[in-house]
Amino acid sequence: MSTTDIDFASINAIRFLSADAIEKAKSGHPGLPMGGAPMAYVLWRRVMNHNPQNPQWQNRDRFVLSAGHGSMLLYSLLHLHGYDSPTIEDIKQFRQWGSKTPGHPENTVTPAVEVTTGPLGQGVANAVGLAAAERHLAAMFNKPGLDIVDHYTYCIAGDGCMMEGISGEAASLAGHLGLGKLIVLYDDNKITIDGSTALAFTEDVSRRYEAYNWQVIEVKDGNTDLAGIEAALKTAKATTDKPTLIRVHTTIGYGAPNKQGTSGCHGSPLGAAELDAAREAQGWRYAPFEIPEDVKANYAGAVEKGAAAEAEWDALVSRYADAYPSEYAAWKQLVSGELPKDWANALPKYTPADKAIATRALSGIALNATADALPGIFGGAADLAPSNLTLIKSSGDFQKGAYENRNFRFGVREHAMGAICNGIALHGSGLIPYCATFLVFADYMRNAIRLSALSNAGVLYVFTHDSVAVGEDGPTHQPVEHVASLRLIPNLNVIRPADGNEVSGAYQVAMEQRHRPTAMALTRQNLPQLENSSAANVAKGGYIIADCEGTPDLIFIATGSEVHLCVEAAKQLAKDGVAVRVVSLPCFELFEEQPVEYRESVLPAAVTKRLAVEAGTSFGWSRYTGVHGDMIGIDTFGHCGPGDVAMREFGFSVENVVSRARALLGK
Amino acid sequence: MSTTDIDFASINAIRFLSADAIEKAKSGHPGLPMGGAPMAYVLWRRVMNHNPQNPQWQNRDRFVLSAGHGSMLLYSLLHLHGYDSPTIEDIKQFRQWGSKTPGHPENTVTPAVEVTTGPLGQGVANAVGLAAAERHLAAMFNKPGLDIVDHYTYCIAGDGCMMEGISGEAASLAGHLGLGKLIVLYDDNKITIDGSTALAFTEDVSRRYEAYNWQVIEVKDGNTDLAGIEAALKTAKATTDKPTLIRVHTTIGYGAPNKQGTSGCHGSPLGAAELDAAREAQGWRYAPFEIPEDVKANYAGAVEKGAAAEAEWDALVSRYADAYPSEYAAWKQLVSGELPKDWANALPKYTPADKAIATRALSGIALNATADALPGIFGGAADLAPSNLTLIKSSGDFQKGAYENRNFRFGVREHAMGAICNGIALHGSGLIPYCATFLVFADYMRNAIRLSALSNAGVLYVFTHDSVAVGEDGPTHQPVEHVASLRLIPNLNVIRPADGNEVSGAYQVAMEQRHRPTAMALTRQNLPQLENSSAANVAKGGYIIADCEGTPDLIFIATGSEVHLCVEAAKQLAKDGVAVRVVSLPCFELFEEQPVEYRESVLPAAVTKRLAVEAGTSFGWSRYTGVHGDMIGIDTFGHCGPGDVAMREFGFSVENVVSRARALLGK
Repeated sequence: MSTTDIDFASINAIRFLSADAIEKAKSGHPGLPMGGAPMAYVLWRRVMNHNPQNPQWQNRDRFVLSAGHGSMLLYSLLHLHGYDSPTIEDIKQFRQWGSKTPGHPENTVTPAVEVTTGPLGQGVANAVGLAAAERHLAAMFNKPGLDIVDHYTYCIAGDGCMMEGISGEAASLAGHLGLGKLIVLYDDNKITIDGSTALAFTEDVSRRYEAYNWQVIEVKDGNTDLAGIEAALKTAKATTDKPTLIRVHTTIGYGAPNKQGTSGCHGSPLGAAELDAAREAQGWRYAPFEIPEDVKANYAGAVEKGAAAEAEWDALVSRYADAYPSEYAAWKQLVSGELPKDWANALPKYTPADKAIATRALSGIALNATADALPGIFGGAADLAPSNLTLIKSSGDFQKGAYENRNFRFGVREHAMGAICNGIALHGSGLIPYCATFLVFADYMRNAIRLSALSNAGVLYVFTHDSVAVGEDGPTHQPVEHVASLRLIPNLNVIRPADGNEVSGAYQVAMEQRHRPTAMALTRQNLPQLENSSAANVAKGGYIIADCEGTPDLIFIATGSEVHLCVEAAKQLAKDGVAVRVVSLPCFELFEEQPVEYRESVLPAAVTKRLAVEAGTSFGWSRYTGVHGDMIGIDTFGHCGPGDVAMREFGFSVENVVSRARALLGK
Repeated sequence: MSTTDIDFASINAIRFLSADAIEKAKSGHPGLPMGGAPMAYVLWRRVMNHNPQNPQWQNRDRFVLSAGHGSMLLYSLLHLHGYDSPTIEDIKQFRQWGSKTPGHPENTVTPAVEVTTGPLGQGVANAVGLAAAERHLAAMFNKPGLDIVDHYTYCIAGDGCMMEGISGEAASLAGHLGLGKLIVLYDDNKITIDGSTALAFTEDVSRRYEAYNWQVIEVKDGNTDLAGIEAALKTAKATTDKPTLIRVHTTIGYGAPNKQGTSGCHGSPLGAAELDAAREAQGWRYAPFEIPEDVKANYAGAVEKGAAAEAEWDALVSRYADAYPSEYAAWKQLVSGELPKDWANALPKYTPADKAIATRALSGIALNATADALPGIFGGAADLAPSNLTLIKSSGDFQKGAYENRNFRFGVREHAMGAICNGIALHGSGLIPYCATFLVFADYMRNAIRLSALSNAGVLYVFTHDSVAVGEDGPTHQPVEHVASLRLIPNLNVIRPADGNEVSGAYQVAMEQRHRPTAMALTRQNLPQLENSSAANVAKGGYIIADCEGTPDLIFIATGSEVHLCVEAAKQLAKDGVAVRVVSLPCFELFEEQPVEYRESVLPAAVTKRLAVEAGTSFGWSRYTGVHGDMIGIDTFGHCGPGDVAMREFGFSVENVVSRARALLGK
């Protein structure tokens, strides 16, 4: 397609709409929207398959702005292409309290935003997840001539995204998997906040991506060579066996005559004078927020094109439904996001007669039962499958040419793993991603976990080896502060189950809460199956697992591997006439959401002698133990030694629980 | 040097000592020590400059086992080369409680271990830090012909290290900086825990490192070609303008006839039968833990060689001291690790008459004052220097050819930044590393921060933009749970200062605690200088900043930007006859370390009406507010909008503090 004046006008409309909104907000990043406008225009107006009238169209191409600080680029694209949201009024409210146009794109705020970005590099990994989801679904459902799942995933990333380790992890994996329908446009403008990339970033990015087994295409003039951008995108689309990096050389803030090409236009409004100068230089004779009619007319074509594309796909889906009714039904069920009724009956139940077994192993059993009941389950571990016990036995490895398989081999790449799972969850097709590593390495992926919670991505995090009972690997591998650190993250369920029934309950919560991620903390070591343990009560966060007659003298509150110690200790104390209640509290978050009456029934305010027992930091437990309570916890790092020795040395024995209880009661 | 039988015997001594210790412990990773023994032997016995009699020799070559799970390799090397520790008895206690030979190398436990490793990829970044420290010190002190700082940094890394994003970040930076004396041996054995690297890791690592501007050398037969390994090391040493990756192709578990080359020997003892078979196959006729005399004799040469090397260097230092007495004195002062007396007098002092200013800007002032007083200060930001305000004005950028400069440009690489700072701190030469980013991105570097704390690395973390007052950037950039999440990490001071004097106090604490890292949480927005604020009291963690007559009706407890709100609220309440005390609590950790009498004097148990005010999660505050207290905190994600609007909407206003105080008092 040839480049015309209307193309450049349409690009300038992106630039000025963005710069005007940032100017009005007195806050924002004009550099990327102005420099990236040409590639974004060619992509969105000419290449990308999307329907502005239906942002939720299942088969739309996905777009991720990994360089989320350039959010106005995305808002301008959405508005100009005819999406209902954001409106021009929304854009005038850019970055204001309660607006639809927050400082960084948020999928929970702006309807057509696929994922929440801003923390650099995350978006690249999200895009890998979106592309993996597409390949997986395509392999699950497509039939010859009836590719009902068939879309590309595009991503615009900046220098910052390229520097972050997470993007390298994700890109290595994408190359390994041969995700040919993933296309990343690298806005190579040589400017970051500190100044020139010459300060810290002089590697050969193209060569690096080639090393990852990507196709790399350069566009030397990303400012004006629209045909070159389009040709690169066509070549990228035509290459189906490997992902493509299109390295687009641009000038940051292109069009602002005095600030372009400098860090001065990266993260601050241009200022009135420079914005006027840009209008003058670009011959843009329109008022702020004014879109000229010919530009509007040009973009209007996107609405038509999008509607036609979806209609064509609808027809394809009809033919599919006719030819493959049961597959169609399965697909519909999946993309509905509704879980099959009674699926949870598949979860295993246990009695005290069942053998002692580690909660990580119980998780493996529950995961397999869940995976058999829920075809959307898709995930794996960061090279710890034999330790995390996260393989789906009925399936094989998700690999190039075997995308129908459900076991994702993430490699030793925790951070990308989490962000890839966010992409899978936010693909919005009913896939339920899970991922796993040792609990201590939740630290490597913390921002991805946070973004699961912030973006309502219902990812399941399976964290095993959840205390000093890890043992011989020592303090680098023994989590101490990690359960608490996860509890701090808003909108995240942190569940530390005590036995098999609680593990089943944890899986039920995790699956049913499709817009809230769940992190499970699971043991390496075996635990007995407890009397009165309850899957259903996990959903309440905490419950009485062993009780005394009448008002308790003391309440034990414990989680996970410490619950059985408390149950035993309570029995011993009962022999001496001490009335003890034991509360299992697998999930603080869910417990706090219970009605006050329920919480009071479990932890009566009148019983102030309370002993919390958890093999982790005491930080945060005061809310339950109060000023008259006590805690057996660990407020130092762990220590190398066999797991049972470490637990005993740190005070996690029935004997010590009894002794500390007596001390608390003064008897 | 030619390869002889004694070389192979000496290598087998490493293999069997390692495998025997792991067998005895019934826990550990024999694969790496057995497969990596040849490269380790050539490096330690033939190439590396080290003195077993003095592990603290300043000019020793540094060695990092990034693949820390192979710890027995390191313990075997240390023992065989004649280091005092670990003894053979220590090795027999491998992985046991209280031993000198923990499961992963810990610098605080085993004298000659440089850094604590285990979490994969960290060691590569630590090595970059060690190499950067060497270049910086060399540029500071060396004189023509008198290179008193002149050593290499070696690192052995595995597939897992190579997959982790942190190593990519660090390697990119090392290439950019041209750290020619950094040499990483990549133990390319194609096996990880899950099995073959073909499962998830098929990129071209050599090409990737070339893209980072490293020299890459391959050793095709790392099992037997000792001359090839040595030649590669010589080439690496001779190349001084870029770091070198030596890619050594090895067989994991080499020598174990049935398990070598498989993941079966990665993380579990070989088992008695396989260990016997290995002895048979290798013709190793010695009992477990027995070192044959000829092998002992061969290794004994290392002690002589090391002593001679240090003696030669001592002579060099003497000549240096004669020729450059003042530089010598400065160097001695620095490497002593002692701070110059009265240095803290350089820190600025403020009165309420001074203007309102953001604590990040106050930090910039204090950092510059500190840097002028302490020549060891060396660090920078992850591409946020203009926002974190962390540039040392009296110096330039630490760059290739300008290693004397003190401003480290880390690029957008938070995780590597933290680990590089750990390497700089643990270089043990008096350098004081600092690094900076937005507080919310502490999440990207959390494991590195944890390792600072675990390994007693006195790194200063400067985290700015510490609350929802960040404003328009929205919830991706607004920390809510982060101050609390840092408080969870043992042995880390987390300081949130309220004004200029508290910032000065925070710097004093951070500098004086050379074996404990400090994280500062600093505002984006301006804060007034407070009456009674105290630098000295920061060291106590908390203190009374405003008091009432007699027993308080209520105590406000606040940190950072919320202290001044409480001071104002207390004044308003005083007008109505409500007696309010205001406690500034900049550092929980230091406060908890105060004598109980002091803590009681600040927060008397009798005063149970307490209102905590902190623009972050309430998790963990119950210990101070108790059951009768309340908190103005934020237990959800933040929200986009101008910073002052966000703060007000979340309840951080004098009006709301007064109102909540009244509610708490029932008046």
